[in-house]
Amino acid sequence: GMSVPINGGIALDLNHMNKIVNISIEDRLAVVQAGVVYDDLARALDPHGFFFPPDPASSQVCTLGGNVATNAGGVKGAKYGTTRDYVLGLLVVLPDGRIMKTGSQCIKSVSGYDLTKLFVGSEGTLGVVTEITLKINPKTTASTTAMAAFDDLGDAGRAVSETMHSGVLPAVLEILGREALMAINRNTDLNLPEVDAMLLVETDGYTQEETDYQVRKVLEVFKRNNAREIKQAKTKKEAEGLWEARKSAYAVLARLNTHQVLEDVTVPMSRIAEALIGIKKISEKFNIMIATYGHAGDGNLHPQFVYDGYDPDVVERKKAAGAALFKLAIDLGGTLTGEHGIGLQKAAFMGLEHSEVAMDVMRGIKRLLDPNNILNPGKMALDEG
Amino acid sequence: GMSVPINGGIALDLNHMNKIVNISIEDRLAVVQAGVVYDDLARALDPHGFFFPPDPASSQVCTLGGNVATNAGGVKGAKYGTTRDYVLGLLVVLPDGRIMKTGSQCIKSVSGYDLTKLFVGSEGTLGVVTEITLKINPKTTASTTAMAAFDDLGDAGRAVSETMHSGVLPAVLEILGREALMAINRNTDLNLPEVDAMLLVETDGYTQEETDYQVRKVLEVFKRNNAREIKQAKTKKEAEGLWEARKSAYAVLARLNTHQVLEDVTVPMSRIAEALIGIKKISEKFNIMIATYGHAGDGNLHPQFVYDGYDPDVVERKKAAGAALFKLAIDLGGTLTGEHGIGLQKAAFMGLEHSEVAMDVMRGIKRLLDPNNILNPGKMALDEG
Repeated sequence: GMSVPINGGIALDLNHMNKIVNISIEDRLAVVQAGVVYDDLARALDPHGFFFPPDPASSQVCTLGGNVATNAGGVKGAKYGTTRDYVLGLLVVLPDGRIMKTGSQCIKSVSGYDLTKLFVGSEGTLGVVTEITLKINPKTTASTTAMAAFDDLGDAGRAVSETMHSGVLPAVLEILGREALMAINRNTDLNLPEVDAMLLVETDGYTQEETDYQVRKVLEVFKRNNAREIKQAKTKKEAEGLWEARKSAYAVLARLNTHQVLEDVTVPMSRIAEALIGIKKISEKFNIMIATYGHAGDGNLHPQFVYDGYDPDVVERKKAAGAALFKLAIDLGGTLTGEHGIGLQKAAFMGLEHSEVAMDVMRGIKRLLDPNNILNPGKMALDEG
Repeated sequence: GMSVPINGGIALDLNHMNKIVNISIEDRLAVVQAGVVYDDLARALDPHGFFFPPDPASSQVCTLGGNVATNAGGVKGAKYGTTRDYVLGLLVVLPDGRIMKTGSQCIKSVSGYDLTKLFVGSEGTLGVVTEITLKINPKTTASTTAMAAFDDLGDAGRAVSETMHSGVLPAVLEILGREALMAINRNTDLNLPEVDAMLLVETDGYTQEETDYQVRKVLEVFKRNNAREIKQAKTKKEAEGLWEARKSAYAVLARLNTHQVLEDVTVPMSRIAEALIGIKKISEKFNIMIATYGHAGDGNLHPQFVYDGYDPDVVERKKAAGAALFKLAIDLGGTLTGEHGIGLQKAAFMGLEHSEVAMDVMRGIKRLLDPNNILNPGKMALDEG
């Protein structure tokens, strides 16, 4: 609900601020206006052999300003981090009209408070970001992709956690639950195994030997945790097929009913098995379809609720199941949102995760920068108290 | 000047809060009290094959609380980032005595404002950090070390910038200037080439082939930029010798005169050659010895001023040369400090880098959290205005 003016007001559209201001490969950075689309920057960086790693699933349409607002992540989070890790500086219009430059064009700086990182993930509540300076990374030149099928959610969860402490750091480690696998098979000819969970892994490096070495380590972990089927992609096409499956999950699930909500909770790695099992129980208890997939490598799960939104009883059950999901994540030491943000929908749950002291400090910062509360009022539970 | 109570008051010593509270390899994190020494954590993580990458030069004595206060960096910054990139959460005592938990135990979270990153690098001006939750990384298992000697500062600077856009990302890329090389040779039997600049590079990965591949790419860049002598370490001992040279720079230079000040400025990569040449000119103009070395791979230079601090004329020239250095860094698009912080010494120069709007926002945050200005008054130019 980040750009929804629930109290009336104005929705500011920065789509036309879509200029790539400067790409400086020698300084390892790109300066862009807020309305530049992620993939447009990716295309501009590609000939130089560089990229901006977060790679959100919505990369074809999402803007970098939006990425900054939510601290967007994506499939490469476990190894490469999220948007915040790459934002070196911002140009921000404050609510009183003053223009503020934060950060610098240096990879490293500890000069004053880090106002840049404060604005990243602030969901448009503190100022209007108009220009962004991003650190960029050289692309690796080799990768290896593999998958494994698990008959048991507990085994899959343990395989994720063990992978992340096996000594290697996969570039991608994704999970797809049974409902997602079934929906994909119904809509494609990928013929995925219809098991409790499938894990998809990609390792990267500069030489093929390096990436194969890492995948071997991961596949050993998978075997130890009772993977039923293991397959290493032999060709680029095979690898692309596997990623195609992951990428189609959202769309094919959305077709199954009239309504769907994609959730976004994160738990510490060791609790992934419990989270997966807990989500299954919530699905059963409230009799609502929850198809889980996500970025298992950093504990970020995307349970997708698929339901008949025209049936008031179902809508109530969906709401209760959502609340149970947030409570589950917090009870496991997790967080309400790994990358999508709080907005309106999760505002009521902020107290589950943050103490009154922390909320008070956040509200103080909001009042300091936006005393008239003109930017995104009602979002992130910052109005109360 | 971070822990110097210049206005009287109390210096708070957290050295006895030195417990490693929890190491959770399966969650990829460590929870430590603020007084834990960097190397003590490194020793505790080592048997698990994990590490906390920033690796400051003072690792034997610096505490993790201090690392958080200054957002400490080290030789691995270019590839692995600085302290801020690894702090997932904090326990902070606010100036009014309230205790605040920030962040979470998740690798990824975008729930509310990032109060954690606001406190990292705040130099003890906003609260007392007592406990830190750190993301940790698996160690790579192979590395390759090489060096190159350059007769010309311009060539060396260009070699650094070109390396950083050659497609590979060295784990370490350090520079040692002529004065440092001469001082090291006078105090050791390392027999380093006494050239204008020596570059030291380390690449890492899981297989030897991978790290050799990367070093080859770097050495090609060095050759293209007129490196006079190039040497790849053939044994672990040879590699250690080269790092020994780099590590001894500070100490051997400190012996040359009665006083020394280690500076810390950072410039965008493409400006390193200009920075090196500019520093040489400042040294000549003010007739004061400045030996430059540092983390070239992220543009972070450490010009070390070595001088007779009992001679008032020399002290004046040293002061003027320092001011000229800060101005040079800012003129080149750089920052006053890459990793050591602002403290007292650079407070007067904050206006060179930050606009009045940015300073006003920083001061507002300081007043919000510390209305009575009891924490580190006088530091970071936060009292003025």
